[in-house]
Amino acid sequence: MKVLAVDTSSIVATCAILDEDRLISEYILNNKRTHSQKIMPIIKEILESSELKPEDIDVFAVSIGPGSFTGLRIGVATIKSLAHALGKKVIGIPTLDALAFNLPYSEGIIVPMMDARRDRVFTGIYKWENGSLCVIQKPDAVELDELMNILKERDESIIVNGDGTLVYRQKIIEALGDRVFFAPKSANMARASSVAELALSRAKEGKFENFFDLVPDYLRKSQAQREYEEKIKCCGEKNE
Amino acid sequence: MKVLAVDTSSIVATCAILDEDRLISEYILNNKRTHSQKIMPIIKEILESSELKPEDIDVFAVSIGPGSFTGLRIGVATIKSLAHALGKKVIGIPTLDALAFNLPYSEGIIVPMMDARRDRVFTGIYKWENGSLCVIQKPDAVELDELMNILKERDESIIVNGDGTLVYRQKIIEALGDRVFFAPKSANMARASSVAELALSRAKEGKFENFFDLVPDYLRKSQAQREYEEKIKCCGEKNE
Repeated sequence: MKVLAVDTSSIVATCAILDEDRLISEYILNNKRTHSQKIMPIIKEILESSELKPEDIDVFAVSIGPGSFTGLRIGVATIKSLAHALGKKVIGIPTLDALAFNLPYSEGIIVPMMDARRDRVFTGIYKWENGSLCVIQKPDAVELDELMNILKERDESIIVNGDGTLVYRQKIIEALGDRVFFAPKSANMARASSVAELALSRAKEGKFENFFDLVPDYLRKSQAQREYEEKIKCCGEKNE
Repeated sequence: MKVLAVDTSSIVATCAILDEDRLISEYILNNKRTHSQKIMPIIKEILESSELKPEDIDVFAVSIGPGSFTGLRIGVATIKSLAHALGKKVIGIPTLDALAFNLPYSEGIIVPMMDARRDRVFTGIYKWENGSLCVIQKPDAVELDELMNILKERDESIIVNGDGTLVYRQKIIEALGDRVFFAPKSANMARASSVAELALSRAKEGKFENFFDLVPDYLRKSQAQREYEEKIKCCGEKNE
């Protein structure tokens, strides 16, 4: 079974192809260009260099969020379109699960952090137990100070990764001292191979999704939605 | 400081570019084509997609072995040529160090294994201590049975990766039981980002090499060398 996965939840665009035996190819690109310019050429490039056609792929996977609203929409729309056109299965993977999976069998707890602006992060708490990655605290948007208080109470070493650790590095060190370890650069960002690997596990259990139903999971409302609701609320008040 | 690294020690061809802040790009290709066909197009592709010119790279790094004789020669010759032409620095990284670095902050010991044929593996023993990857046993070619006996005596969980774990999977499970964990596919092979990250650490300490002196470290003699020495020995005996 061949899985093609993409992750466009952050500034990074990444695509990977793997099967049950091996990672066949992976491309990670972390530069200024937008995902709409980057992701299709990357998919085309690694399919061609892997000597595969789109129809050779059995499952299309994508990280569904949280993350950049536009980035997630591009990734999800791309994967839905490919699966729809080719009549293939899709699987959506939470971005924070994939980020935690960048650190296989690591000691202590893993706390991926994605910058959610205004001193907030999208985060969760993960731990490897007997060779499996377990979710200790589900993904959510949390105030950085609140997260630091939760982590201070845990009696384990803490490994952090994600773009939030770049933005809040100093605050994290001040709060957690020498119990915190920052992931190497190669494990600090979205990797499509992690999305693909988690999707392959789900696929083996038959946990597929319908490409009509697959949607991003932003974990918070977009600015447009918030403004719209605010407007509706105001109008409602005016009309009363 | 920008580092461009390649690894062609196994069937995988991989190239990555990183700087002090982030992994800029990485390409991993694990298909049938030979390294001489794969590696230069991959280097060209990620330089262009990263919007960088060869002269923007400060340090060229390569995994120097052990591994495929021809693969190592292609990787080392490519990096030496680029560095020579551009007047840049080079750094060689032991392949097994880079394989172990695929598993950041993992618990227990890491034992990368590369198939050396005839029930032998190129291996070493590594451990993360206080956020640093330490070498417990230096890279060497070892009989698989001998390695299993060494590992049986250690009272820790054991994480294995590399192509040797695919070839000898059953024997490893029989010897080590539920103390052994096999790395995910994404951490089971050479990653140029691991070579680049280790090279960046060395570069920060000023530990550069001269591109005239950099050579592969095969950890054993090639078949041609062994046959030549055998021939010389025979001739010597005849002449006596």
